[in-house]
This record gives sequence, C-alpha cells and structure tokens, in this order.
Amino acid sequence: MTYPLLSRIEQPADIRHLSRSELKQLATELRDHLLHSVSRTGGHLSSNLGTVELTIALHHVFNTPHDRLVWDVGHQTYPHKILTGRRDRMPTLRQFGGMSGFPRRDESEYDTFGTAHSSTSISAALGMAQGAQIRGESRRAVAIIGDGAMTAGMAFEALNNAGVPHAGKMPNVLVVLNDNDMSISPPVGALNRYLARLMSGRFYTAARESAKQVLRNAPPLFELAKKLEEHAKGMVVPATIFEEFGFNYVGPIDGHDLDSLIPTLENLRDLEGPQFLHVVTKKGYGYKLAEADPIAYHGPGKFDPAVGLKKPSPTDALAKPTFTQVFGQWLCDMAAADPRLVGITPAMREGSGMVEFHQKFPGRYFDVGIAEQHAVTFAAGLACEGLKPVVAIYSTFLQRGYDQLVHDVAIQNLPVVFALDRAGIVGADGATHMGAFDIAFVRCIPNMSMLTPADEAECRQALSAAYAQNHPVAVRYPRGAGAGVPVPTDLNPMPWGKGEVRREGGLTQPAGQRVAILAFGTLLYPALQAGEALGATVANMRFVKPLDADLVKQLAAEHDLIVTVEEGCVMGGAGSAVAEALAAAGIAKPLLVLGLPDQFVEHGDPAKLLGLCGLDAAGIEQAIRTRLAATAVA
Amino acid sequence: MTYPLLSRIEQPADIRHLSRSELKQLATELRDHLLHSVSRTGGHLSSNLGTVELTIALHHVFNTPHDRLVWDVGHQTYPHKILTGRRDRMPTLRQFGGMSGFPRRDESEYDTFGTAHSSTSISAALGMAQGAQIRGESRRAVAIIGDGAMTAGMAFEALNNAGVPHAGKMPNVLVVLNDNDMSISPPVGALNRYLARLMSGRFYTAARESAKQVLRNAPPLFELAKKLEEHAKGMVVPATIFEEFGFNYVGPIDGHDLDSLIPTLENLRDLEGPQFLHVVTKKGYGYKLAEADPIAYHGPGKFDPAVGLKKPSPTDALAKPTFTQVFGQWLCDMAAADPRLVGITPAMREGSGMVEFHQKFPGRYFDVGIAEQHAVTFAAGLACEGLKPVVAIYSTFLQRGYDQLVHDVAIQNLPVVFALDRAGIVGADGATHMGAFDIAFVRCIPNMSMLTPADEAECRQALSAAYAQNHPVAVRYPRGAGAGVPVPTDLNPMPWGKGEVRREGGLTQPAGQRVAILAFGTLLYPALQAGEALGATVANMRFVKPLDADLVKQLAAEHDLIVTVEEGCVMGGAGSAVAEALAAAGIAKPLLVLGLPDQFVEHGDPAKLLGLCGLDAAGIEQAIRTRLAATAVA
Repeated sequence: MTYPLLSRIEQPADIRHLSRSELKQLATELRDHLLHSVSRTGGHLSSNLGTVELTIALHHVFNTPHDRLVWDVGHQTYPHKILTGRRDRMPTLRQFGGMSGFPRRDESEYDTFGTAHSSTSISAALGMAQGAQIRGESRRAVAIIGDGAMTAGMAFEALNNAGVPHAGKMPNVLVVLNDNDMSISPPVGALNRYLARLMSGRFYTAARESAKQVLRNAPPLFELAKKLEEHAKGMVVPATIFEEFGFNYVGPIDGHDLDSLIPTLENLRDLEGPQFLHVVTKKGYGYKLAEADPIAYHGPGKFDPAVGLKKPSPTDALAKPTFTQVFGQWLCDMAAADPRLVGITPAMREGSGMVEFHQKFPGRYFDVGIAEQHAVTFAAGLACEGLKPVVAIYSTFLQRGYDQLVHDVAIQNLPVVFALDRAGIVGADGATHMGAFDIAFVRCIPNMSMLTPADEAECRQALSAAYAQNHPVAVRYPRGAGAGVPVPTDLNPMPWGKGEVRREGGLTQPAGQRVAILAFGTLLYPALQAGEALGATVANMRFVKPLDADLVKQLAAEHDLIVTVEEGCVMGGAGSAVAEALAAAGIAKPLLVLGLPDQFVEHGDPAKLLGLCGLDAAGIEQAIRTRLAATAVA
Repeated sequence: MTYPLLSRIEQPADIRHLSRSELKQLATELRDHLLHSVSRTGGHLSSNLGTVELTIALHHVFNTPHDRLVWDVGHQTYPHKILTGRRDRMPTLRQFGGMSGFPRRDESEYDTFGTAHSSTSISAALGMAQGAQIRGESRRAVAIIGDGAMTAGMAFEALNNAGVPHAGKMPNVLVVLNDNDMSISPPVGALNRYLARLMSGRFYTAARESAKQVLRNAPPLFELAKKLEEHAKGMVVPATIFEEFGFNYVGPIDGHDLDSLIPTLENLRDLEGPQFLHVVTKKGYGYKLAEADPIAYHGPGKFDPAVGLKKPSPTDALAKPTFTQVFGQWLCDMAAADPRLVGITPAMREGSGMVEFHQKFPGRYFDVGIAEQHAVTFAAGLACEGLKPVVAIYSTFLQRGYDQLVHDVAIQNLPVVFALDRAGIVGADGATHMGAFDIAFVRCIPNMSMLTPADEAECRQALSAAYAQNHPVAVRYPRGAGAGVPVPTDLNPMPWGKGEVRREGGLTQPAGQRVAILAFGTLLYPALQAGEALGATVANMRFVKPLDADLVKQLAAEHDLIVTVEEGCVMGGAGSAVAEALAAAGIAKPLLVLGLPDQFVEHGDPAKLLGLCGLDAAGIEQAIRTRLAATAVA
C-alpha cells in the first residue's frame, strides 16, 4: 500500500489545514502504516491501533509543540511519532540506536515528557500548566491517560491537586481519559466498573438532559429541586466523580470518530480551568485479529498481518522456559502444597506468569490493578493474618512500592516473598524498565534478604528458600530464559545464605595473579567462561543478603584479586556488599566490581547491551586482564 | 483529678458492658488523662483529643482484638493505647525503651498493624479481611483514616480494590473516615473540598431522603426516574464517590457523640461487604487551646495544661537555628533572587520550614497534599517548562516517590532540588520515620547527586550549589539544630564535588597507625573530636555523589586506615561509595565503615541513639582504637 496523504505529513502543522475527509483518509493510511510497520519490527500494537484518530485530532486541534501533549505510559505513541517527523524511523523501533518505543524528550520536541511507567501524565501536565501560568505563557497542557493507568494512586493524587485553584487561578489542564476497558491485563477495580457505567449505552449525557427536562415540566418540583441543589450540588443532576473533583467533564464520546473528537476538543481547548474528556476507544481497532485478542497483540513480535500471530508450535514447548514460566510453575506447585500461599500482582498477570495460578487458585489470586503501593501493603495485611503472600512484581515497578516495602513489610518483619522479574537489562523497553537498582535499594533495608539465583533450577530453589523464611525476601531474576538448566519438580530450597565454588582455579595461577570471580545471578555463566579462559576460581554467590561472608573471606585469603559480577548497578550493589564484608573483616584486598555503569542503559538487544556494559564472557575476561596488567605495572 | 472509671479499664472487654452514660463518663476521664499525660511527656495531642469517643465506640462495638482495628498514621492512638492495657506506660511515651507513639505489632495484640506513614490502613485492613475469608474466619477489619490521609494515592488504590468482589465475595471491611478537616498542615485539594460539601450543615442524608420523598409524591415522574435509575444508578439520588466505588456510605455523623457513633457502628458491624462511615471530629476537641490552634498542639513538647504552650521568648530567637529554618531562609532568599524558583511540599509546610516562603511567594508555593508520588512528577513537569523546582521532603517520605525520582526526574535529567529534611535518626518518632536509607537509594540512581552538609552554614551553601546544577540533586540534613556555625547571608555555593581536610593528623601518627576519618554530614563534628583524641586526619567529604575520589585516593595514600562516618545505613551508604572508589582506583587499604547498623533504630533521644549506634565522638574513637588493636594483633 502507498500512503499518498501520510507521506506528505512531516510535522503536525501539516495536518492542521486538512479537511475532515482528508483527516479520515489520513487515519486509514496511518493505521495501515502502523500495522505493517509494527508487524516488521515487533512492538506495541493494540494500544497504537486504538489511538490513531485521537492522535490526529489532538495534533489537528492543539498547537503542538507549543501546547503540550503528555502521553501516559507512552507505548501508544507510535501514531504520534509517525505524525511528528519520525515516520522514517519506524523500522528502527525499539532497536539499539533506533527510535524508542516510548516518548523521550531527547528524541523530539513533540515528546514533552518521557513516560513508560503508568499514571504520571496528569502530574506532569499539571506541572506544565502551572509553569505556563507562572511564566505568563498561554499554552494548553494535555494528559492522555488510559482507564488502567487511572487506577494508580498517583493519577488520583494529581486529579485531587488539579481540581482546585492555585493562587486564585484554576490550571488550564485537559485530561483525556482514553477508556478502552483494559490496560495490559483485563481491568479490575471499582473505578473501571464505574467507567463502564458511565459508558454503557452512551446514554449518560442524554439521561442527564432528560432528567433536567422532566423536572422543568413540573415547576414546583423543579423549584424545590433547585433549592436543594444549592445546598447539595449534583443532587438532582448527578455529577461524575470527575466533576466532584473540580473538572468540567465531557463525554463519553467515540474516540474513533473524528467528527465527534475534533469539535469537542476545539470546544475544550478554548475553556479555562481543568477539563476532562472521556473518550471511548477499542484496543486493536481496525485490525480484526487484534480487536479479538488485544492481549495477544499488546506487544507482539514480528508477524504477517495477513495471517496474524503464529500459533505456538509443538517445538516451542521444548524450548527453554523463561524465568517467568519457572516462577509461574513454582507458584502453582507451592500453592498446591501450602494452602496459606496467596499470589498478588499489580496488573501484570500475563507478564508475571500468573495465568495458570489464577485459573487454578482463583480465591488466592489477587490482581489489585496498577497499584504497587497498595499491592505491597495489602500483602502485609494478608501476612498479618498468617497467610504467605507472594508478590510478583517487575524490579522496576517495585520502585513504586518502596516505602511500603520499608514501612509495612520490613519494619514489621513480615514473611512476604517478592518475586522480582525483569531484574537487570530488559532490552527493547529501555531505560525506564531497567531493573538496575533493586539490589542497592533492597539490601539496605533491615530484615530483608535478597537472592540472585544463577539459572532456572536455582530460581525455583531460591523461591522455595525464600518462602520457607519467616521474614521478607526478594528473589530477583531477569527477563527471558536462562542457561537452560533442567528445572527440578520438587520444592526443595537452596541452602540458606550459602554460596558455592563452581570452579576451582586460583591456586593454579601464578602468585600475585590468583583471581576469584564472585558471581551474583545469571552472569555466573559468562563468569564461568571468563574463569575458564583465565584459570580463575569462580563462585556462585546466590545471596546478596545474607551474604556468605565466610566464603568471601576464604576466597580473599586464597586469591590476590576479588572480582564481583552482577547484572545490577555497581553503586551500592552486590559488589559493594562484598567490599563492605571485606572491610568489616579487616581484609584489604584488591577488588574489581563489575556491573551496570552509573548511567541509564538504553533500549536494544539484551545480549548486545550486556556486551556493551562489559558483562559478557569476553568483557569480564578483558576487564580482569586489564586490572591484572595495571597491577603488574604498579 | 482521679479516674474512677478509667482506672478500672484494663482491656477493651471491660468497656463492652458499660452503659451509655458510663461510656460518656469514661470519655471525659480519658480525655483528661490524655491531656495531662501528654502535657508531661510531649507527644501528639490534637489528634488524640479528637479520637476519644471514636476509640471508645470502636472498642465497645467491635470484638477487639479478634476484630482488627487499623489506625491510619497512628499518632491518634493514645486513647486506644490507654484502653488496651497501656495506661500505665503513658509516662514513657516516645522515650527510649518506652511506649511507641505509634501502633506496633510487637507492643500489643490490639495493635494489629504498625502505622506512622499515612494512608496505609485501608490496604492493610483489606488484606486482613481477605485473609479472614480465605481462612474461613469470621472477623471484621476496620480502617480508621483521616481526611488528609485519604488524599494519598494509595488510599485510593485500596478503595478501588475493596469495592469489587473477589472470587465472588465482597470483603468485609469498614472504612471509618475521621474527617477533621486537616492533616498536619491545613487541608488542600479537591477531595477535601468535596468532603466539606458532604459535611456542610449535615443536610446531606436528610436531603437525599426528601428527594426520594418528593419524587414518590409524583408517581409518573417517580416511575420515569426509577426507569432511568436502572440505567444510571445514582442519577436521581446522588451517590457519593464512595458509593460509586462500591461502598455502602453512611454519614456524616458527629464523631464526638456516642449516641450516634455506637448505634451506627453496631449497624455497620452486622452488614456484609465494604462499609464506609463518615465521621466528623474536631482536632483538639475538649481542650479549648488545642481546638483554637490544632497545628500548634499537633505535637507539642511538655506544657502546663492550665496555661498552654509558652509563647516563644526573646531568647529563643538567639538559639541555634534548626536545619529546617536554615532551609526555609535559603528558600526565601533564593526565590527573591531567582523568579524561576518554585517550592513544593507534600503537606508539610510547617515541618519543612515553608511557612514564610508560602506567605512571601504564594504563586510559587505548592502544597500538593499527602501525595509524594505526584509531588515529584509535578516538579518534573515544572522543570520541563524552565522553572527550578525545590521539593522539600523528609528523607523517609521520599521513599514514597522513589519511582518518580528515578523515572520522571533522573532519567530525564531534570534540574530538581530535593531538600531532604529529617535525614538520619529522628528521635521520638522512631523507626518508621528514620531517614536511614536515602544515601543508599539515591546514590545508585544515575544523573543524581547527593550532598551531605556538615553544619548550618554548609547546608545553605550546599543548597545553593545544588540549585546551580542543571541536573537533579539531593541535599540531606538532619532533624534539629547543628553545630551552631554562623550561617552566611549570601547565596554562594560550596565548591562542587570537593571535600576538604579539616584536621591534618595522620602523618604525625606512628607508621601503620595513621588514620584518616572521612566524615559525611553533621557527624563531622564528633569525628573531629575523635580525630583530636586519636591524632587522626579528618576530612569533611560534603559530597556522597559526586564523591571526591581524588581526596579519597590522596588520603588512602597517606594513611594506613580509612574510616568513614555517616548518619545513614552502612549498607550501600557513603562508606560503601568510598569502598567502591578505592576498588576502582585499584587501592587495597583497610577500611572501617561507621554508620547506622542493619537494623531499625527505635524511638528515643537522638543523642542517646547516636551514642548507642557508636556514632558519638567516644564511639567513633573507640571503634577506631578497637580496629587498630585488632590489626596490631593480626
């Protein structure tokens, strides 16, 4: 297909003069371009198919980039990227050196705010609106947020803050609720149910008007009602909760209908104060297969649009399981063995591998919505009643529940297991999703333990070990598959607090050159390769906390250089824990700490990124050789 | 005054058989006891005077401890403590070894959940309610939460999760909204305004009933209305937002009227599913001075109840300023110098020293409510527009905005200054308020810097230095006053990234015994004393990040033992940063890391607690002598 109209759009200004029928043609071309482009690169699909018309309408109506669009989560911004001069970069999407899958301030002036974690957009847009008022600039700030993202507490905090005047003026912020009845997992919670009521049958606005009408035909009653209304705003004409929060609520309107969207947005653009537009869209809109299964098409790999996603082939079952799958299987097995187990996810049933657990143990499965703060404290409450909560959460999203981890779980020393998926480099999602900091921010908390299993088998053993404790424990494991080690079916734990020497080597090395590599987590395997090349000792440390200090001391006594390796930030990480242990033992020994650098790692292929960070076998070997050479010179 | 009734109450069961008039007498005695007790120890007063009747009613109606009461924030639980067998421990309140000012699970079985940070209670109570259902136990879980705490996102997350069925059953959770129209600072935000509307004139329930009545008298209209209501629940009879969220809402009722409270709670106790009771109380109720100024009496020191708080005397002005005051003055001065400065507080105007800034610069002052997540991202939005946000936040509360710090501020490298008050040991508030972890959890974030000024003068210079940067910077300082160093009035920054040697000493020490103490923050002063006693070199490091690695290397070269001192956790802290710097430089040197231990530090006098942690001059000296002796033996 050719794109006669789309191919002429180099910036949003180019669509401001288009007629309504041209805009509709543009939508058709844009959707087709999007489908074919994403099918060639992989990436987010359903959400982007759902925002084609909304994106066109927003850039048509608002004077971007002078007016600010803040896209919540941001994985729905491919149409926005295509319309803002980045159409030609779509083939590089989410690849190393290529275009990010999320908005980024350093990528385009139209990307006013970097997003990726959910529910930040209203806060950011409100900041921009207040900033404009302070600077005396006339601009609009628009937050576009999904119904899933709206369940997170920080969206509510921002609404609560936006609906009141500041220094006598109401902020000029527009919240567009992109209501598609799902986030990634199916929707949960009372807000979603409420929105469904607002949407059902599009009757709402009509009903309000007819209620007013009805009352107007019965004058005395109308007078009474008006009188009561003076005291109780919204008593006769019901206000939405958004109006109760001080917003002018409009909607719901059809988010795929430019004839509704454009005039409505034009009206709202010209109003002062906080505005709220409720737009209804369909994830995957316009591509039947995605409409039918928006979860499968949420973030597909490459596929043929004419055929759709391939069915899993029988050989796929023979492929190495991902750590996520290992966790999911362990969770089911442990739940079968222990009726006290409860599983909690903040809206990541699929991503965290909990679909089967949900099916088998619906009474003990809790999807609390995009609500990490609540998830952690809710788990603490369950633990107080003698249950054994397992919170499955991506490393990067635990940052959202950090205070609750300290205050509600750790101080009370409650036995909650945190299964930290996506620890380390995550690949295509980039810096915002990196699980780089968990070792540093968890190990400093008293009462917490942290385990770093080296492979699939150890992952299961680590989870069983964590579960057997009577205090909080985090088990971290990376995205994707591991070394391919067969996974046991039993529930035996790994020995608590004990690392192991996996390769004896140091003693055969020349004096002054005896190296011990202490690996934390899955980098054990490249560390073993490096150890082989160097003739070094290699230890699988398994525990960041409690650290196997005896093993550290023993290895320090027998070697001339201690090297730590971890897929986490160097600052404050596991290598730092080894340094502390050496210091506490009064041991002064050369130490080389290898891990993620003090900078955010961008999107790209994980293996490539690990290599760039010097964390593949060659990088580890090279770093050690360099250090040994420097020492020899010195 | 004697307490004939109160003195016989040893547990809540003792009040279940009391008559209504006896309960009223008990309230009078309890309030008097509370006032006199707190006036002798200091502690929270206004909030506790406000919950006397509510506490009596809850323990009278519910079968505690079998039924679970979760008190949000928990500083209003003195009446609860007095009625649950801890009356005699009130004189030890908030003192070392004495009773905590907050609920604690290890203090009483009636303290079902430890609280202190706001807005956790609904999550915890919901966990308890779901836990009871899974275990097949019949019990009620009650969250008692203030209107201020209700503005935090996690309360909303919990409401959203509680109002829907789980595995086909609604949770038996009761939320009691204790609406006293304030948290610590005056209330802000749309929710508060909404609650005020619900409260105004107590007309609400009456109005709803009369609306129904009115419609019933006009049959055809009533039929139409009913029909519409089938589609749009709450259209004619307005639902509160709490009903929209699936709760059965009752209220508002007078929270000081036992004749209202007790029958209402009895009714709600016997209903299934999520219940919401809106109770109106007055902070400071029953003590006129506190009613008139609940902020002043929020957390007073000792005072004479007959006289009230002493007016600040002229000599107070001559006392050493607190770090909070130094910050407040700097903020005003910098705001006067730079119109881009904006100041943000999450509901801590008084505690963070921003009252004067608010008065002088109302347009650039933002109190966003108890909403740390929003506060941080809102600041990021302001920074995107070229403003220079200063977020004043307690170290412990930054934990609430950790993901936003990483994701919205640091990844985008936005110039936001974080003024971290209450860093280190906080004293009477105890473990929940400790600012122990900030160095560890901030320094691991790329693009962030962290400064640890040593005294009041440096605090001002550090803030100016942070403000001059074009990236995010945190400046941490402790509760209370510092060394008493005169504070400059200019806005000159401290030199960026540079520590300084404050005492030259190591070279005069015997070989093998040359010690350099590297102090981070206010512990410089006891470190100097220890250095004097030992003849050691003492450096004021000032910067945790960027660390002055040159100074570290120089000191390492000239000394035999490096000692780091910080008022923060040892794990991952500033000492750990020094260990990393030494390792990176290929230097193997004995290192002694002094800081807060890997356990939560309880409440008590800060100086005493520092001493117990070995962080006073004597402790630092002793730790060094011990290490030197061990080395000599080895």
